[in-house]
Amino acid sequence: MATPAVKVYGWAISPFVSRALLALEEAGVDYELVPMSRQDGDHRRPEHLARNPFGKVPVLEDGDLTLFESRAIARHVLRKHKPELLGGGRLEQTAMVDVWLEVEAHQLSPPAIAIVVECVFAPFLGRERNQAVVDENVEKLKKVLEVYEARLATCTYLAGDFLSLADLSPFTIMHCLMATEYAALVHALPHVSAWWQGLAARPAANKVAQFMPVGAGAPKEQE
Amino acid sequence: MATPAVKVYGWAISPFVSRALLALEEAGVDYELVPMSRQDGDHRRPEHLARNPFGKVPVLEDGDLTLFESRAIARHVLRKHKPELLGGGRLEQTAMVDVWLEVEAHQLSPPAIAIVVECVFAPFLGRERNQAVVDENVEKLKKVLEVYEARLATCTYLAGDFLSLADLSPFTIMHCLMATEYAALVHALPHVSAWWQGLAARPAANKVAQFMPVGAGAPKEQE
Repeated sequence: MATPAVKVYGWAISPFVSRALLALEEAGVDYELVPMSRQDGDHRRPEHLARNPFGKVPVLEDGDLTLFESRAIARHVLRKHKPELLGGGRLEQTAMVDVWLEVEAHQLSPPAIAIVVECVFAPFLGRERNQAVVDENVEKLKKVLEVYEARLATCTYLAGDFLSLADLSPFTIMHCLMATEYAALVHALPHVSAWWQGLAARPAANKVAQFMPVGAGAPKEQE
Repeated sequence: MATPAVKVYGWAISPFVSRALLALEEAGVDYELVPMSRQDGDHRRPEHLARNPFGKVPVLEDGDLTLFESRAIARHVLRKHKPELLGGGRLEQTAMVDVWLEVEAHQLSPPAIAIVVECVFAPFLGRERNQAVVDENVEKLKKVLEVYEARLATCTYLAGDFLSLADLSPFTIMHCLMATEYAALVHALPHVSAWWQGLAARPAANKVAQFMPVGAGAPKEQE
């Protein structure tokens, strides 16, 4: 088999890396996940800093193009291979995808990440969960999810009645959240719950979820 | 004169609102800035929550379309009226615009906003500056600006040798930063400094800067 032209650098347990992988899986792009170890500090080595000067993962190489920042990577993959997931070039739909992608980035993900870091990754980082941080962010997340509930009562997906990156982008952090007791926040909201189940049932989401075994004790790096 | 079809809700002193205004000015779009008062809690009133359920500014109305989140608004305005500022539909250029827009949102703006809130807006919010917060974020911002310096040594603008939203998006928060003593962080870096001066000299940037009188004592709301 020929080596895929597309490479992703990083560890798939990261919701940021797996966001990029989800876009590739949804678009049906053949790719290679180049293994890196966070514990060994691979992201701080010169060869990785040459790919991303911020020393973060994921990085995508697509031919001569080197991209970082998971949402930029996801946009590129879909623009090239499945533009309907960005609104298909229609102004209004594309604008709504952008709005709900920004909502994911600036309203939903910050509290969700804070909860997941404390509840899922803290043991992996060798420390106890900080419950005060969890409680504060649960309150924030609850309010955000109430807005999602109201939105999803008016349309099937976040940007309208079509699946888009606005729905896929939160999948990986929500997959981690759903492995905690705060999954109850989602279960309490019927429209959010139905939307989540629809996302989680997608073959691409299923495949990416397998890279992220957060439900079964401490997460392991994919190496 | 006919009422413009495009309305922006918010107060222009906000770097988020003025980011939307900068996109409109660069695109040459006629718009109306609908005055709102933060102090009077206009953003918490039902009519505004109907526009943006998160109760934030800016909101853009473009005909039947109501958008929130400043970067989504800026993308929409440019996609409709000046697509070359998003990479002009070329895959590689568009991807690089996306990368550096995400860098602005997730690397540059968080420490810049923290510094500006403490140094510019804290007195306006009736409290003292927290110097520990400033110091911590100055260290973060310094590292980010060093990456910008290296990038801008290789091309004229962030996404390549063409102006884009990736350059314009940080303008308004940087305009506030440049009113503080931490402008020195920018002056210390020759390529960042030249890039900043080029941005600040643009007529659209100049016009938006006039909405944001942060240099002359405590900022005033635009009402």
